[in-house]
Amino acid sequence: MTTDDNMTGRIELDKLKYDQNGLIPAIIQDAQTLAVLMVAYMNQESLRRTLRDGKTWFWSRSRQEYWLKGGTSGNIMAVKTIYYDCDADALLVKVTPLGEGIACHTGRYSCFHNLLAGEGS
Amino acid sequence: MTTDDNMTGRIELDKLKYDQNGLIPAIIQDAQTLAVLMVAYMNQESLRRTLRDGKTWFWSRSRQEYWLKGGTSGNIMAVKTIYYDCDADALLVKVTPLGEGIACHTGRYSCFHNLLAGEGS
Repeated sequence: MTTDDNMTGRIELDKLKYDQNGLIPAIIQDAQTLAVLMVAYMNQESLRRTLRDGKTWFWSRSRQEYWLKGGTSGNIMAVKTIYYDCDADALLVKVTPLGEGIACHTGRYSCFHNLLAGEGS
Repeated sequence: MTTDDNMTGRIELDKLKYDQNGLIPAIIQDAQTLAVLMVAYMNQESLRRTLRDGKTWFWSRSRQEYWLKGGTSGNIMAVKTIYYDCDADALLVKVTPLGEGIACHTGRYSCFHNLLAGEGS
């Protein structure tokens, strides 16, 4: 996706199901490697900004403010495609990681680097 | 993963961060294709059952009950690996879809089949 051209929005944003805090989880997946990079929360306005800019905007629950991912670090997530699920209560955002190509504040590629169980991959 | 052998649990389950309803989102990803299949919610007990059985157990927010994914349909999600993220407030569960190999109640492979924006893939 390039900025503000082909983000058509095939569902009205107010038809999505937000939780009691007005939030919907957004799974961020590398469009090329298909690795799941992170999960964060959007509200209707941060989703609108994401569609407008072609970069992921979230609502920070801890800081209670809008948050352009990579706005400080330069590790912008450039949006390629957004899907919503069958219940319309979760988003899957396929991205190209820019900057250093890392999602996690620890400097790792993915936020999901901690093994809970199983053999890893 | 096979049932109740190598699910070691490298973090105590009560160290994970559950929301105000005691829930943590679990992203279900096909371990082979890396497609994101669905997102659902676990509480500590459903995570314990998942570790015990090697099959995904969720907490159904609408029905307020434990829910073995595929318990009725046969479309069990066999757990290979579980990761938690840097904030310990989300899970990534890599699975092998059994039965018909579909995740969605609509009969589709993935619950994320609705395009919101972008060109699809």
